Amino acid sequence: MMFKKVTIVGMGLMGGSLGLSLLDKKIAERVTGLGRNLKRLHIAKSKGAATDVTTDHKTGITGAGLVVISLPVMMIPQAFMDIKPYLSKNTIVTDMGSVKGAIADKIGLFDTGRNFVGSHPMVGSEKAGIENMKEGLYDKGACIVTPGAQTDKKKAAAVIRLWKTLGMRVSTMTPLEHDKCIAGISHFPHLAAFAMVVSHEKEILENKDIIGPGFKDATRIAASNEALWAEIILMNKAEILRNVDAYVKQLAFLSYMIDKSKISDLKEYIKKSRILRESIK
Amino acid sequence: MMFKKVTIVGMGLMGGSLGLSLLDKKIAERVTGLGRNLKRLHIAKSKGAATDVTTDHKTGITGAGLVVISLPVMMIPQAFMDIKPYLSKNTIVTDMGSVKGAIADKIGLFDTGRNFVGSHPMVGSEKAGIENMKEGLYDKGACIVTPGAQTDKKKAAAVIRLWKTLGMRVSTMTPLEHDKCIAGISHFPHLAAFAMVVSHEKEILENKDIIGPGFKDATRIAASNEALWAEIILMNKAEILRNVDAYVKQLAFLSYMIDKSKISDLKEYIKKSRILRESIK
Repeated sequence: MMFKKVTIVGMGLMGGSLGLSLLDKKIAERVTGLGRNLKRLHIAKSKGAATDVTTDHKTGITGAGLVVISLPVMMIPQAFMDIKPYLSKNTIVTDMGSVKGAIADKIGLFDTGRNFVGSHPMVGSEKAGIENMKEGLYDKGACIVTPGAQTDKKKAAAVIRLWKTLGMRVSTMTPLEHDKCIAGISHFPHLAAFAMVVSHEKEILENKDIIGPGFKDATRIAASNEALWAEIILMNKAEILRNVDAYVKQLAFLSYMIDKSKISDLKEYIKKSRILRESIK
Repeated sequence: MMFKKVTIVGMGLMGGSLGLSLLDKKIAERVTGLGRNLKRLHIAKSKGAATDVTTDHKTGITGAGLVVISLPVMMIPQAFMDIKPYLSKNTIVTDMGSVKGAIADKIGLFDTGRNFVGSHPMVGSEKAGIENMKEGLYDKGACIVTPGAQTDKKKAAAVIRLWKTLGMRVSTMTPLEHDKCIAGISHFPHLAAFAMVVSHEKEILENKDIIGPGFKDATRIAASNEALWAEIILMNKAEILRNVDAYVKQLAFLSYMIDKSKISDLKEYIKKSRILRESIK
């Protein structure tokens, strides 16, 4: 048993699934679900995601060895401020947000007890909410832990151990390295998928029945939750805008080759794409 | 039995799988594989994709009730010219190319016997070649048949019947309608995936192990065969370049909203994307 009491702030898809796994794998003796809507917290409890639920910060946080903030990215810094009065010196606080730089910057200003260590477990789904809670969500997949210069090393090690015990492959990066990397392999691809779907509204409405697996796979993430993703994108805007520029340059280069019918250059380009893509598995 | 003899020109993934299905479903009594490489034709025959194989046009075409040209798109018009001397008045000729306008234009100039009816069965894979031949490839999925003003109506009806008998949902469009529609839902998405992968070469090489299912699905088609796709793209270049323009405009609009932190507009945009994408299933 790593923790007697773990508190999860926010009991949605990610928070609920985490509570379930912490109890199931006996990583936590008790899991407290802390949130604003008692009715929804009770649903989470009835589904086995928490042993206790509360809307009161003091009750929720006091005595917790670990607090996991599982809220949309823009709410994470404020949530840290709300729970700060009830943290003890040894309480470890982490989060599960997909953006790390802006969160580390804001929390860093107030984290006098060096309680916080950022995490980004790369799981989830285009769905959201406790209804879509999933057993074993953290059993595999990658998690990035993002200690910065001010981070308490022991707490960082405990957070890394937590995700590994849950079954994840853990890497560490600084918050800024994380945002740069994830802009490229997750945030920007979402943006590109939104644009792809909206740009082909007419074809989708008129030719639904002939849309094949290629388009479907390429745009699956275009069905992501708008509230979560608008926040993620705005909190990592500099890196994402850099990605848009780099991508549009590639499209311009492709357009040039196509316009000039440069077939062997085009083949080379597609070959490079194929080999890179095949290398991912 | 619809046909005593069907000849398939080109025995790759598509042609081989078609031969297998025509024999399996007893749509053809005999299937002749016509190609240039006798060794590879014999592999196709040994795998059950043909009852006869030949490299000789006269032997291959004479007596065939149906000829299916299963070659890369740029080779289809020349293949039609090569077989034309051996076609009878009633021979139906179709193809399986992903581009229809340029092919119909070129073949139309020589199709004095009105033998040709264009088809585009939307199956296949990012793989190619007889080694990747697949049983049941035509059992489901959509097929577009593209009769034009000059097309023989009886032959078009027979081609539609053929794909339906194989198990496909068939729609008809003119060749130009086809190219416009398929540029949007297939050709351009491939181009966008090539650009996405090449644009993120560094992240792919350095962070392979943390790339998740979102990026993988979004770029699966980026591993497509370069020889086939360079041809497809160049043969539908006008429509594809129009798609690049429309898409880059959407990206510019998104960039503007992001740069100005217009969160509610961004949410509306993503919501539109989500609802459109969810409507496809």
